[in-house]
Amino acid sequence: MQKFFLPPDRCFGPDPAQKEIARQLYGLTAELPLLCPHGHVDARMFADPDYSFGSPADLLIIPDHYLTRMLYSQGIPLERLGVPRIDGGPVEADHRRIWQLFAENYFLFRGTPSGLWLAHELSEVFGVEEKLDGGSAGRVYDHIAAQLAKPAFRPRAMFDRFRIEVLCTTDDAADPLEMHKAIRDSGWKGRVIPCFRPDAAVNIDAPGWRGALDALGKAAGLDIRSFRNFIQALENRRAYFKTMGAKATDHAVIEAFTAELTAAEAETLFQRALQGKPEPDDARRFSAHMLMEFARMSVEDGLVMQLHAGALRDHNDAVYTRFGTDKGCDIPVAGEFTRGLRPLLNKFGNDPRLTLVLFTLDEATYSRELAPLAGHYPALRIGPAWWFHDSLNGMTRYREQIVETAGLHNTAGFNDDTRAFPSISARHDLSRRVDANWIAGLVVRGLVPLEDAEEMIRDTAYRLAKKTYRLD
Amino acid sequence: MQKFFLPPDRCFGPDPAQKEIARQLYGLTAELPLLCPHGHVDARMFADPDYSFGSPADLLIIPDHYLTRMLYSQGIPLERLGVPRIDGGPVEADHRRIWQLFAENYFLFRGTPSGLWLAHELSEVFGVEEKLDGGSAGRVYDHIAAQLAKPAFRPRAMFDRFRIEVLCTTDDAADPLEMHKAIRDSGWKGRVIPCFRPDAAVNIDAPGWRGALDALGKAAGLDIRSFRNFIQALENRRAYFKTMGAKATDHAVIEAFTAELTAAEAETLFQRALQGKPEPDDARRFSAHMLMEFARMSVEDGLVMQLHAGALRDHNDAVYTRFGTDKGCDIPVAGEFTRGLRPLLNKFGNDPRLTLVLFTLDEATYSRELAPLAGHYPALRIGPAWWFHDSLNGMTRYREQIVETAGLHNTAGFNDDTRAFPSISARHDLSRRVDANWIAGLVVRGLVPLEDAEEMIRDTAYRLAKKTYRLD
Amino acid sequence: MQKFFLPPDRCFGPDPAQKEIARQLYGLTAELPLLCPHGHVDARMFADPDYSFGSPADLLIIPDHYLTRMLYSQGIPLERLGVPRIDGGPVEADHRRIWQLFAENYFLFRGTPSGLWLAHELSEVFGVEEKLDGGSAGRVYDHIAAQLAKPAFRPRAMFDRFRIEVLCTTDDAADPLEMHKAIRDSGWKGRVIPCFRPDAAVNIDAPGWRGALDALGKAAGLDIRSFRNFIQALENRRAYFKTMGAKATDHAVIEAFTAELTAAEAETLFQRALQGKPEPDDARRFSAHMLMEFARMSVEDGLVMQLHAGALRDHNDAVYTRFGTDKGCDIPVAGEFTRGLRPLLNKFGNDPRLTLVLFTLDEATYSRELAPLAGHYPALRIGPAWWFHDSLNGMTRYREQIVETAGLHNTAGFNDDTRAFPSISARHDLSRRVDANWIAGLVVRGLVPLEDAEEMIRDTAYRLAKKTYRLD
Repeated sequence: MQKFFLPPDRCFGPDPAQKEIARQLYGLTAELPLLCPHGHVDARMFADPDYSFGSPADLLIIPDHYLTRMLYSQGIPLERLGVPRIDGGPVEADHRRIWQLFAENYFLFRGTPSGLWLAHELSEVFGVEEKLDGGSAGRVYDHIAAQLAKPAFRPRAMFDRFRIEVLCTTDDAADPLEMHKAIRDSGWKGRVIPCFRPDAAVNIDAPGWRGALDALGKAAGLDIRSFRNFIQALENRRAYFKTMGAKATDHAVIEAFTAELTAAEAETLFQRALQGKPEPDDARRFSAHMLMEFARMSVEDGLVMQLHAGALRDHNDAVYTRFGTDKGCDIPVAGEFTRGLRPLLNKFGNDPRLTLVLFTLDEATYSRELAPLAGHYPALRIGPAWWFHDSLNGMTRYREQIVETAGLHNTAGFNDDTRAFPSISARHDLSRRVDANWIAGLVVRGLVPLEDAEEMIRDTAYRLAKKTYRLD
Repeated sequence: MQKFFLPPDRCFGPDPAQKEIARQLYGLTAELPLLCPHGHVDARMFADPDYSFGSPADLLIIPDHYLTRMLYSQGIPLERLGVPRIDGGPVEADHRRIWQLFAENYFLFRGTPSGLWLAHELSEVFGVEEKLDGGSAGRVYDHIAAQLAKPAFRPRAMFDRFRIEVLCTTDDAADPLEMHKAIRDSGWKGRVIPCFRPDAAVNIDAPGWRGALDALGKAAGLDIRSFRNFIQALENRRAYFKTMGAKATDHAVIEAFTAELTAAEAETLFQRALQGKPEPDDARRFSAHMLMEFARMSVEDGLVMQLHAGALRDHNDAVYTRFGTDKGCDIPVAGEFTRGLRPLLNKFGNDPRLTLVLFTLDEATYSRELAPLAGHYPALRIGPAWWFHDSLNGMTRYREQIVETAGLHNTAGFNDDTRAFPSISARHDLSRRVDANWIAGLVVRGLVPLEDAEEMIRDTAYRLAKKTYRLD
Repeated sequence: MQKFFLPPDRCFGPDPAQKEIARQLYGLTAELPLLCPHGHVDARMFADPDYSFGSPADLLIIPDHYLTRMLYSQGIPLERLGVPRIDGGPVEADHRRIWQLFAENYFLFRGTPSGLWLAHELSEVFGVEEKLDGGSAGRVYDHIAAQLAKPAFRPRAMFDRFRIEVLCTTDDAADPLEMHKAIRDSGWKGRVIPCFRPDAAVNIDAPGWRGALDALGKAAGLDIRSFRNFIQALENRRAYFKTMGAKATDHAVIEAFTAELTAAEAETLFQRALQGKPEPDDARRFSAHMLMEFARMSVEDGLVMQLHAGALRDHNDAVYTRFGTDKGCDIPVAGEFTRGLRPLLNKFGNDPRLTLVLFTLDEATYSRELAPLAGHYPALRIGPAWWFHDSLNGMTRYREQIVETAGLHNTAGFNDDTRAFPSISARHDLSRRVDANWIAGLVVRGLVPLEDAEEMIRDTAYRLAKKTYRLD
């Protein structure tokens, strides 16, 4: 048996002086609970006290597109990994075989955050004590399966063990939030709150738009026949989400383009969309205008506005058609914020009631646009390193390219943005280690004194997220 | 009292071997005077031997948009910081209160170059011995105020103390340079020279263009009615600036776009502008053509041409309208040089009489465009890390992304580009430390021998700026 | 005499723990031969067993545009470096004077990869024992000249000494590959194979297109009068290249833009080109379609497809007109892959028969586009850091920005891409050192165990190139 590899000082730089300070700073985070202000965990798992995660493959492989896309990129069909097909066609059903295949290819994850998270989950969460490979796959599978059968591995128990203070889900504007209600009604004290994401009702060029619009109207109790109705329905739903504890909204766009239409233009454009006769630029202009509307609503109702810009979704038609969305083929494009956000920022960026958190997949915008913008506009905060950049190097680049210009207090703190609930502690742990190492680097370079460094690590690990997302 | 924090080895990396070499190389710069070939210090302060800086807030906070924008970004109104309003409306007048507010928020500057420069100024320039915060604010204020009352803190005395060899200001093309004349006439030996910046007369789409044009004509003694007159007036003024010691011109553009118009096109376009009837693309094409004209003039008169590309000025209408320009809301946009500069470089880039110094706010262009261009065209030099990038990480990235391709000798040396005179020594010191650490990194990696490293630090700290700007 | 500078631990970081591991990992590469799957060495030198490299200047300076462009950028005319003029006009013919001029300016290469490669060649290949400068120039010249006169410095002997397992040249589609035939016929066992590069026949807007097309037709034995003929001719030539050992094709484009034309559109467009009457967008659309065709051909014949995107060739008209192509004035432009490659990837990117290797000169695309694309599509591999980025910092950025997202196994391994045969061992050595140091950094940070690191260095130094280029 090859002993499992998880050094206690992992992620810290090699210099002994810096490492010692990093260790100290990281140690200070042990007392801080986890704040999860943005993510995609399914609320259902907390509604039922006896919810089970299923097999190790159900939990750790099949739904995790970070893992399946890497294996796919090396020629392993998604069917062999048990990823369900849209047409219900056959895929691998033997979860031990899926696990074996994954274990044999685990070397593909050397030097990746997925590899690091998984190592953390196996060791720290499940207590696996040997290295995963083709030889150990079966034993590791059995070990995890045995753990999952225990009450300590029910979601609520893990929620407590991870010391999660608040967990935000992400929910369609029309979602009745039944699971959130069930959680409340159950009397369980874990704080799981929704986040308002209206993209489906806003993307007038998406195939499912009419369905989403009907669902929105139904949820809001409105027959949406005009742009004005549409806005009312959205405001209505936001109010409902707030009653369910929501603190934020989320908006995904391919470009951070904002522009205000007149009321007449908005109505005309909306009517064209209702009639299924949009003109070429309508979807782009509608999205631009809706961001203005959502900023206005946030000024009025206090929900923090999140903007995730730059992912071209479902780049691979064949995979999308066969397996659906979120299969690892969303690919970034170049970003632009300076000109695109100017209308919104000129109208609302100086308003102390607005908090707008910006996320990018184009790191070139960190130092060029996001840091200068956030270092000026009171409403702006820069969201943490997102998605492909939520890694040791990615988070380090984020700090090194943003903080000098924007200052630490214009960053939004960490969020894990995960669908994979058992990876939450691993993701926070990596983030805390990277920040401890970065701050220790400032100390050993004589740039900040140790007492300031201790404040900074508490800011990055806990306080900035709490303040940004108004998680009081 | 919390002792002030300013370690002698600050900014050097933690590795002991590298740190020791960095310390040695940095030590070599102690003997080198400061060259300040580009900046925005007001010449007025050297014209009057008894010029006083005013209060500590007058000197260090109110005019420094690096500081005020950061506080503004965290919700502190500029009025509370004493920033003057255009309409003359009330702003905070109690400078002790401004200082107190700043001190209470000084933690916002952790890990920023502004924080580092200020620490240097407080400690090294003013001899402050305790850490600035809400508790010490009053004492520090009193200490600085007492220093400012002394003759040693008059501008000329500080100029000598900083060992400035030459200080270049930046001056409008129509400026009569009265202050520069007064400095000469005073018999003081400090070398303060102007730099020719004709932007106001070139930006035909700016609200103040006609005023700038009239001022240019008046200064040149010409009634500008044709493009030909316009060119004559500019050439006339350049000649005058040269008599006052000028070595360079400066041009700010949002994009580095050059293109030559025919004489007839230029005249037609200029006449449309005079009549207030420009066509949509006129301002862009005029700017592109004028860069060609300015390069031609530089070939002829030997003034070094500086091009600062990529800042979208006055992004925040509300702040601009209330407080005017230079208030921390100039935001970069993506840059392009390869195609944009090709016409200019094809015409003048091989001419040994031209030196064109390029500055960018888009770091993606360092390795992609600027280094390959400067590593080929004899006329090109790359200006130092500019503005948001004039920081420890920013300057390090500049070195690491440029020198391998362009070579050190195609970089222009350091310039401080500051409006804040007392920050000059702090800025040069940071730059020298960063370069010493970078070069030490080459030595400990076995890439250059120590004797070459000693040449390199003299190049970066002094000789490259002297050669590039022809400061003989 | 100043002793030559070439520390055995060069390129490794200063931390003692990391350096020790880097040294171990680098040591493992000593046993691995060199794979050179992409480059521009002239096959002629292996066809003749007695081929001589000429003078030291002939070998090391005159043909190396990395060196001559740097000297040119500092004002030294290419004529003085002996670079031949297109018009046959006079250039420096005294190779000792060329060498002297170069040696006096060798300091320009401090901190550059060219400087490092040359140091390696002088010391490790030619056994020079003193530092090159103006004083030592003559002695060093004599030493190298004496070495070049020895049989051990014939190309075939150096091929063996460098332990080259396979060397790929790059050859026009119409090339008869006479030299490759001569090598085969000579009975020499060195493996030198061609690579199919059809750019000249594809760039319908280039001045030499008709000539290239005629040559292609002649080589293929076809009178090319239709697009269909054109495709046949290309397929015919690919088949011939395969019989000569070719494993790959190569395609240089300014942008990675793909789009499929209908058969009728392609024919129409081709006929317009034949008639010399192309419409404005024809060249761009033709190139886009041809990339689709080449991908299809690769699926069918198994040749690995390489795509080099982003160099604007011959930026400097004056240099191009006087000295021709490849004179150091090819300048990168911003890159885009996500949208541009989508048509090709949707059609062929999931096909296990295709391997498409992507090269970029815009490092912003590493983490933003290339890593996410290669981390998903089975057909994609990311080519090594290319051209301006094939340097210590450039290769380090490549690893740090790509591997976390794409995984090591979606990278293509190293290739030297050089015209300068004696630099091959220097280039591989630098690459192996940089990778050893990078992987050692993962080990000391506790991210991969040493036994995995040992696999990784074998992957980067040898196995990935072998697998990607199917060099079995």
